[in-house]
Amino acid sequence: MIYLDNSATTYPKPQKVSNAVSQTMRASANPGRSGHSMSLAAAKTIYDARTTAAEFFGIGSPENVIFMQNCTMALNTAIKGILKKGDHVVVSALEHNAVMRPLKALEEKGISVTKAEVSAKDDDKTVDSFRKSINANTKAIICTHASNVWGIRLPIERLCALAHTYGLIFIVDAAQSAGVLPLNIGEMGYDIVCTAGHKGLYGPMGTGMMLLSGSVLPEEIMQGGTGSNSISLTQPEELPDRYESGTANLPGIAGLKAGIDFVRTRGIDNIFSHELSLITALYKRLEKMSHVRLYTPMPEASHFAPVLSFNIEGLDSEDCAARLSKNGIAVRAGLHCSPSAHEALGTLETGAVRISPSVFTRHSDIERTAHIISKIK
Amino acid sequence: MIYLDNSATTYPKPQKVSNAVSQTMRASANPGRSGHSMSLAAAKTIYDARTTAAEFFGIGSPENVIFMQNCTMALNTAIKGILKKGDHVVVSALEHNAVMRPLKALEEKGISVTKAEVSAKDDDKTVDSFRKSINANTKAIICTHASNVWGIRLPIERLCALAHTYGLIFIVDAAQSAGVLPLNIGEMGYDIVCTAGHKGLYGPMGTGMMLLSGSVLPEEIMQGGTGSNSISLTQPEELPDRYESGTANLPGIAGLKAGIDFVRTRGIDNIFSHELSLITALYKRLEKMSHVRLYTPMPEASHFAPVLSFNIEGLDSEDCAARLSKNGIAVRAGLHCSPSAHEALGTLETGAVRISPSVFTRHSDIERTAHIISKIK
Repeated sequence: MIYLDNSATTYPKPQKVSNAVSQTMRASANPGRSGHSMSLAAAKTIYDARTTAAEFFGIGSPENVIFMQNCTMALNTAIKGILKKGDHVVVSALEHNAVMRPLKALEEKGISVTKAEVSAKDDDKTVDSFRKSINANTKAIICTHASNVWGIRLPIERLCALAHTYGLIFIVDAAQSAGVLPLNIGEMGYDIVCTAGHKGLYGPMGTGMMLLSGSVLPEEIMQGGTGSNSISLTQPEELPDRYESGTANLPGIAGLKAGIDFVRTRGIDNIFSHELSLITALYKRLEKMSHVRLYTPMPEASHFAPVLSFNIEGLDSEDCAARLSKNGIAVRAGLHCSPSAHEALGTLETGAVRISPSVFTRHSDIERTAHIISKIK
Repeated sequence: MIYLDNSATTYPKPQKVSNAVSQTMRASANPGRSGHSMSLAAAKTIYDARTTAAEFFGIGSPENVIFMQNCTMALNTAIKGILKKGDHVVVSALEHNAVMRPLKALEEKGISVTKAEVSAKDDDKTVDSFRKSINANTKAIICTHASNVWGIRLPIERLCALAHTYGLIFIVDAAQSAGVLPLNIGEMGYDIVCTAGHKGLYGPMGTGMMLLSGSVLPEEIMQGGTGSNSISLTQPEELPDRYESGTANLPGIAGLKAGIDFVRTRGIDNIFSHELSLITALYKRLEKMSHVRLYTPMPEASHFAPVLSFNIEGLDSEDCAARLSKNGIAVRAGLHCSPSAHEALGTLETGAVRISPSVFTRHSDIERTAHIISKIK
């Protein structure tokens, strides 16, 4: 199987990730709950993972790294913990349902949303669209770092500066970009970054993070036992406990640490270059095929993440994916949980076929995929 | 190390649980997202786990099994999804902070709470206390199946009947009981049961479940991508998708299935008998030690789960646990995230030392533990 569905979850996971998970499965107590050596060792495993993530994302305080079940949970916490009745929020037109569905639920509670247009390769125009969407009630800008469908990168450095100029909170959905695109929270001043742990960071499914610069702390959406200040019925305010109630996903978090270590060892620039070279090669092959419809310009480094979606004229995207699957190539078709992103590029009806490589994808895999696509009529 | 901290998380995990986790780490795509064979196989893994849990808990519809990060998340969903401004709720006096802290947060939003007293071994008195706590605004009864500190079982069958007599919703916190005490949701009619996956069910940390009889569906507290009905920005109402946004913890859920299979194979009655015999033996040893303070009557099957907490006169519970740890025995001291349960039995100031066995604990472990305790002065 040639696996090109890495935007859903990366596969394979590095051996060290699987090993870290296995090791915690074999020998671990509940971290941060008891005083015996096994519990303390488990707490150290979590702390090491937090420190690793903090260093990787340029966060000074490891306790500002909040482990979550997935990026969706991180986004729900950030969005619902920040926005109050009467608030307005600006989002990009390329957001995933992990942003759009919480906002839709909040609309019923008196929160309003404006979608700013995104112009691939024209950052001035994109920033301008966000600026024009701001009104007197705007509380925050929320936007994806890179579209999970089109790979289009948003100019988040400039959008963050725009947000702060207007006194707004800036929240980034880095589900598709963490581990692939540079993301230094301390340097850039992003207020909150939410990300998955099982995509570009190569951790296990079931992991995600809410990364806090510390400039703003959302209200927590869940409370419970934290192993700290147990006598109080009020949720503790200390980080990370405030946002991490109940037993932690120790095997997952241990695996996530190993995944981040893997990315650091390989080098994020190397990973990006490799994956973008694959996508560029694929683009060049596909643009020569008259039956293939492409929707974005040639992906280049400053404006794209390594993800490419296309369609074959007259063929449903799901049918195309099924044909590829029969030929041993795993991709994802349909709407990718991002109807907004499809609406923006006119594929809401058809969906699209998405190709997303990982560090393990080879040029021969892409060659083979292009060959199969050329034969699908 | 003699590990007697199984109420925090069971250790060791059965080999099949670790194997199931390892296998999904080695070869899995994202379930329910794509149409290729690896994604479909992953979706089948999740479905099999759902079916296994549904059978185990007597639920007719597998989709009423909702996988969560932990029991705390399940309780937050049940509690916040049910209670509205002006509602009143009755809880037991032995609840964990996973129930009490969400309720404390809701008190600020106009929800009121009454704690009903629990009389160990006197179910009539306990039920009466719950009955007297009900008022015209009462919406639900929430109670633990068994205290995580004292092992005291609540008469949940009778409390469920009481709740339904008054038209109330009945929610059970089965974090400590699932896998140890019988819990048939279909037969008994409990409306919602929340549980951990990593305790008596022997699954990995990072797993929990909200089990729905279907009589009442709480509002979801999070929204996001579900891989279903993606075109709609409104969260789907279908189960389990409504409550399971974002990527699932596939390795954890695969491990949880293996854990439930393990419990079924061993037999819940056998597990309970074994663990209770250990706790009874320990109780008999401890009650003869003049420096040991016990707080509950002799644990017997109909009124206790296999958990025992005690103190040594004049010694802080944490110090006692540290002494045990130095002698190779892992227990948990302090408040166990349950200040209410400690307040109810007068140990809020001192905490207590908790002994909780698993199916793997041997009588010789208990003998050794009793011996060490006898030497602590």
